[in-house]
Amino acid sequence: MKVGIIGASGYTGGELLRLLVSHPDVRLELATSRSLAGKPVSSTHRHLTGFLDLKYENPVSEEIRERCDVVFVAVPHGTAMNYVPELLDGSTKVIDLSADYRLDTPVFENIYGIKHSDPRKAVYGLVELHPEAAREEFVANPGCFPTGANLAAAPLAAAGLIDIAVFDSKTGISGAGISPTETSHYPNIAENIIPYKLTAHRHRAEILQELTRLDGKLRNISFTPHVIPSIRGILTTAHLFTKEPLSTGDVQEIYEEFYRDKPFVRLPGGVPSLTAVRGSNFCDIGFEADKENNRVVVLSAIDNLVKGASGQAIQNMNLMFGLAETRGLWLPAAAP
Amino acid sequence: MKVGIIGASGYTGGELLRLLVSHPDVRLELATSRSLAGKPVSSTHRHLTGFLDLKYENPVSEEIRERCDVVFVAVPHGTAMNYVPELLDGSTKVIDLSADYRLDTPVFENIYGIKHSDPRKAVYGLVELHPEAAREEFVANPGCFPTGANLAAAPLAAAGLIDIAVFDSKTGISGAGISPTETSHYPNIAENIIPYKLTAHRHRAEILQELTRLDGKLRNISFTPHVIPSIRGILTTAHLFTKEPLSTGDVQEIYEEFYRDKPFVRLPGGVPSLTAVRGSNFCDIGFEADKENNRVVVLSAIDNLVKGASGQAIQNMNLMFGLAETRGLWLPAAAP
Amino acid sequence: MKVGIIGASGYTGGELLRLLVSHPDVRLELATSRSLAGKPVSSTHRHLTGFLDLKYENPVSEEIRERCDVVFVAVPHGTAMNYVPELLDGSTKVIDLSADYRLDTPVFENIYGIKHSDPRKAVYGLVELHPEAAREEFVANPGCFPTGANLAAAPLAAAGLIDIAVFDSKTGISGAGISPTETSHYPNIAENIIPYKLTAHRHRAEILQELTRLDGKLRNISFTPHVIPSIRGILTTAHLFTKEPLSTGDVQEIYEEFYRDKPFVRLPGGVPSLTAVRGSNFCDIGFEADKENNRVVVLSAIDNLVKGASGQAIQNMNLMFGLAETRGLWLPAAAP
Amino acid sequence: MKVGIIGASGYTGGELLRLLVSHPDVRLELATSRSLAGKPVSSTHRHLTGFLDLKYENPVSEEIRERCDVVFVAVPHGTAMNYVPELLDGSTKVIDLSADYRLDTPVFENIYGIKHSDPRKAVYGLVELHPEAAREEFVANPGCFPTGANLAAAPLAAAGLIDIAVFDSKTGISGAGISPTETSHYPNIAENIIPYKLTAHRHRAEILQELTRLDGKLRNISFTPHVIPSIRGILTTAHLFTKEPLSTGDVQEIYEEFYRDKPFVRLPGGVPSLTAVRGSNFCDIGFEADKENNRVVVLSAIDNLVKGASGQAIQNMNLMFGLAETRGLWLPAAAP
Repeated sequence: MKVGIIGASGYTGGELLRLLVSHPDVRLELATSRSLAGKPVSSTHRHLTGFLDLKYENPVSEEIRERCDVVFVAVPHGTAMNYVPELLDGSTKVIDLSADYRLDTPVFENIYGIKHSDPRKAVYGLVELHPEAAREEFVANPGCFPTGANLAAAPLAAAGLIDIAVFDSKTGISGAGISPTETSHYPNIAENIIPYKLTAHRHRAEILQELTRLDGKLRNISFTPHVIPSIRGILTTAHLFTKEPLSTGDVQEIYEEFYRDKPFVRLPGGVPSLTAVRGSNFCDIGFEADKENNRVVVLSAIDNLVKGASGQAIQNMNLMFGLAETRGLWLPAAAP
Repeated sequence: MKVGIIGASGYTGGELLRLLVSHPDVRLELATSRSLAGKPVSSTHRHLTGFLDLKYENPVSEEIRERCDVVFVAVPHGTAMNYVPELLDGSTKVIDLSADYRLDTPVFENIYGIKHSDPRKAVYGLVELHPEAAREEFVANPGCFPTGANLAAAPLAAAGLIDIAVFDSKTGISGAGISPTETSHYPNIAENIIPYKLTAHRHRAEILQELTRLDGKLRNISFTPHVIPSIRGILTTAHLFTKEPLSTGDVQEIYEEFYRDKPFVRLPGGVPSLTAVRGSNFCDIGFEADKENNRVVVLSAIDNLVKGASGQAIQNMNLMFGLAETRGLWLPAAAP
Repeated sequence: MKVGIIGASGYTGGELLRLLVSHPDVRLELATSRSLAGKPVSSTHRHLTGFLDLKYENPVSEEIRERCDVVFVAVPHGTAMNYVPELLDGSTKVIDLSADYRLDTPVFENIYGIKHSDPRKAVYGLVELHPEAAREEFVANPGCFPTGANLAAAPLAAAGLIDIAVFDSKTGISGAGISPTETSHYPNIAENIIPYKLTAHRHRAEILQELTRLDGKLRNISFTPHVIPSIRGILTTAHLFTKEPLSTGDVQEIYEEFYRDKPFVRLPGGVPSLTAVRGSNFCDIGFEADKENNRVVVLSAIDNLVKGASGQAIQNMNLMFGLAETRGLWLPAAAP
Repeated sequence: MKVGIIGASGYTGGELLRLLVSHPDVRLELATSRSLAGKPVSSTHRHLTGFLDLKYENPVSEEIRERCDVVFVAVPHGTAMNYVPELLDGSTKVIDLSADYRLDTPVFENIYGIKHSDPRKAVYGLVELHPEAAREEFVANPGCFPTGANLAAAPLAAAGLIDIAVFDSKTGISGAGISPTETSHYPNIAENIIPYKLTAHRHRAEILQELTRLDGKLRNISFTPHVIPSIRGILTTAHLFTKEPLSTGDVQEIYEEFYRDKPFVRLPGGVPSLTAVRGSNFCDIGFEADKENNRVVVLSAIDNLVKGASGQAIQNMNLMFGLAETRGLWLPAAAP
């Protein structure tokens, strides 16, 4: 199939390209960038030297639709809504990696402080929770933090067992993008860990939406992110207070059952490691129950750029085109 | 005063030496190591080359007592109890950096799985909470994690405001000691974050002891540590659910009042940074309240080897000898 | 083809496995480990969870020969010579990743201080310089440092232009293996760079062998390695004093010509980056001439575990079996 | 004495402040910043919270002269020349940390591409080589790379023994300043090493100036810098080809003699480590001779912000005011 990427010059664009050059059913047709139009894609994504001859372009939506069977939209929040309606005006399928269509419009407008110009809401493409995404023409790819948090807590939430959920997440700095910032300045983040948006990060809304969908009675969901000195990866420590005492064995059973036949969620035993998922589309999960205190600590590890963004988007694409969801994605991490 | 260090070859021993060579009232008299006896101290602590002529020794307790006005015990848990009784058998003061005397004996025996050979319990040398340590001959220096956690939560605990406390702590790897391990192996910890002892780390007992002393009704205290790719530093994220709604301003007032005249606790505003305390004896604290959800996130940043170990031990020494607690310790971090 | 790995539990073994699970012509038949026999391979290489059902075994050489079309020997120097003769006693092909067969026997014995028990010498499997390796049953896979250094200097050496060559190499710590050491201890290597074997590293012999083969008159070759705080990668800075003044354009021409049709050597322009080769089999090369001083600085970047070890070994396997050398290896780095 | 800092908001300004707050003879009178005038110094240098009440100011030169006994100029190259003449128009002493007065004017103009507005040249304040700096009113503080390179090679250069010198230097990223850049962006520099200005870095001129002053016949001096994933520190690997064969013992003797009574140059034995000098004013040197090949590898380790900038500037200040050069600087590194 012919694939286009709107906004291909950033990290998620680069990661889409990296994974798609090896995808057996994909022909990369188009990579757009307004500021880099005319330049070879490999001049900025230098690791792709030798893998593609593509140049950045900046065509109108109509041309994009005509040339592509599927388009990934990898532009900033608030911008995707300017592309999506026109791209969908035909048979082209669209996967949006921004936040624009993940939330109900009023929630989006409240959280992001942006007036939404397009009332439609997409299916939330966390396919382990939303298998119906496979039947859609348009999918909203989840945020990186919510992917890790929701996969960590979903089995217990679906079982109606969670009373209070505290998500303490730790992300690699690539989540902040390709442009240098105060936080990404090596002397600031190396040998450090930087918490931010302690009580009100925007991704909390996606966690709320998905977990309360699974369990309307969930009493309290809080989320605090941190940046760690790592390029890739999100480790989420979910401190879950449960309504009844659970043993680690109980938890094991619930998770095994919930994630049966979900190829990209692994329960490898013990504590999951960012190293074991780096560069791959896996979400590795581990846990330990403190039965006496009605508490379970669940850990999930993902690569924020793969399962947290571009890999998950391709997983969605595979399903939307009737392919195995692992197609072109069944690659282990390059550990160590 | 003449100072001895029992077990001077590890990281806490090295850090005691580093700080004491510049302490205006200290003469370093003695540094012991069983395995290195006879070798120059600077042959293993190479950064101290030029600062001391000391050789490692291994004398009997009686000699140590005779030569030293104060002794720091920096040996592993379960070993200190073999030294302390004999060292205290005279006028020498003792500061124990191990866990042996921090907890009530039965609690210690239960948590550490070691039979205690010496029934005495020392004052817990977190001087911001235990000013009475200044009058003691023998002080148990707190653990690194409990120092960060207790300083983060104490003001709200003392005010009886905490219902549930979840401590999610992130430590530099030097806390695991000077000997190479699986966790300290660079390919394992770099670009990673390693949670461990998810629900039952031994330091939880010290947090429990101190916070329930401040507030007997505190309902739930949990603690989960992680190792981050950093040499030094502990950032503690305290997720505190409060009995009543508090604003960030309320919290600010409570902390300012509680830590008035505590020179090593700073409230610099904003999010504290490991960089700003690295190598120093400070504990920097920041917070943000989520009034609507009866939740406060408090952050504390310390250097695990300084305020979390050797610096705090010297702070205790200063007070036990009637000196200003900042004596020899009033040094800023070498940031960045 | 059926593939076996002798010594599969280390980093090079793990990297062979990672690359081979995706190789379209390979069936992984056998992974040996004396100490781990009976345990699942994915219990130690946790990133491979879900990719293979193999358990470590420890069969005799005869059985290995019978079960495998090709065997990779990934055991320590001095040990491979105990396996190779018996493995070669049939039609099984062998690729040895140790140093045992890279050098002439007397040179090996002198440099490694080990008596060699097997007089044969293999072709040196740096296929860009030794295309004849494709016709062999047995190949000695090059060392990591010599791969980077020889590829950096070969074009100028082959042209007879080098007078003095100083190789200043910087390697990631994974080159030192999977077992924790003083050097791999995070507090020792983070925020540091550790030079070692300043004038007499054993890999110098491989550089000498290959470059003097290309140019017998090369006057002086020196090599100094350093460990950098990085998991993977070797950057080699080759300070080359030339017999005649060269411009950067002259150098560009020589390298383009020399590496025409070598798919894994790229000249991407500018300074090569470890990031752009991480996890991949590429060697990226860049250079700048200081014509006035008869000096050229050539830089090469490889992943020490891939082009510097396991990837190159598979590249050899591909050629020895008549496959395209890129088969199963044509994957870009996961940058950033 | 009353001290002022022109340009106090960057890393070298911050490091001057950090060291000066503990200097027993110093009163910090003035810290200037055009863009931050009016803000507390500790609002940007947060690690200094509690150590000073200073606010950034932006007074005219005349006022600076009147208020200060000595002024450190820590502004960018090409800017210092606008301040120095007016500051020197009285009894105030000046130490310039920029490159403006380190080189002969024509050399400066050629290398920096800037027309110099002030013809004076200052004494080059590498006090181990220029003890006469102690008698000056105005000193040019050396560059960071030249400090490491010149101290590494000076003893052999002074003995007329060097034929060719290749300096391969590795610096922490703080040398590039406090503002985020492509190079300091964590995903670019972590797990990487970035060479730059392969043959023509501007600091080469300072190495040339000093080493040819010591030995006019030195045939070739080349210098290639790299940025490593480290906040602080410069390791210089000096590959020195000598005119006659030297043993490591010969070299040891020459260096011990040359650096006798130089308190900040240490020869601790073995390979020097950035860890052992971090935050301190030391230059640690080690070496190994390859007698057979007329080659010596000399290594020097400094903290680029201390001995490579602010510490050295204070060392100059001490001497210019008749104090011991170690005054306020005799602090060991906080290793690990």
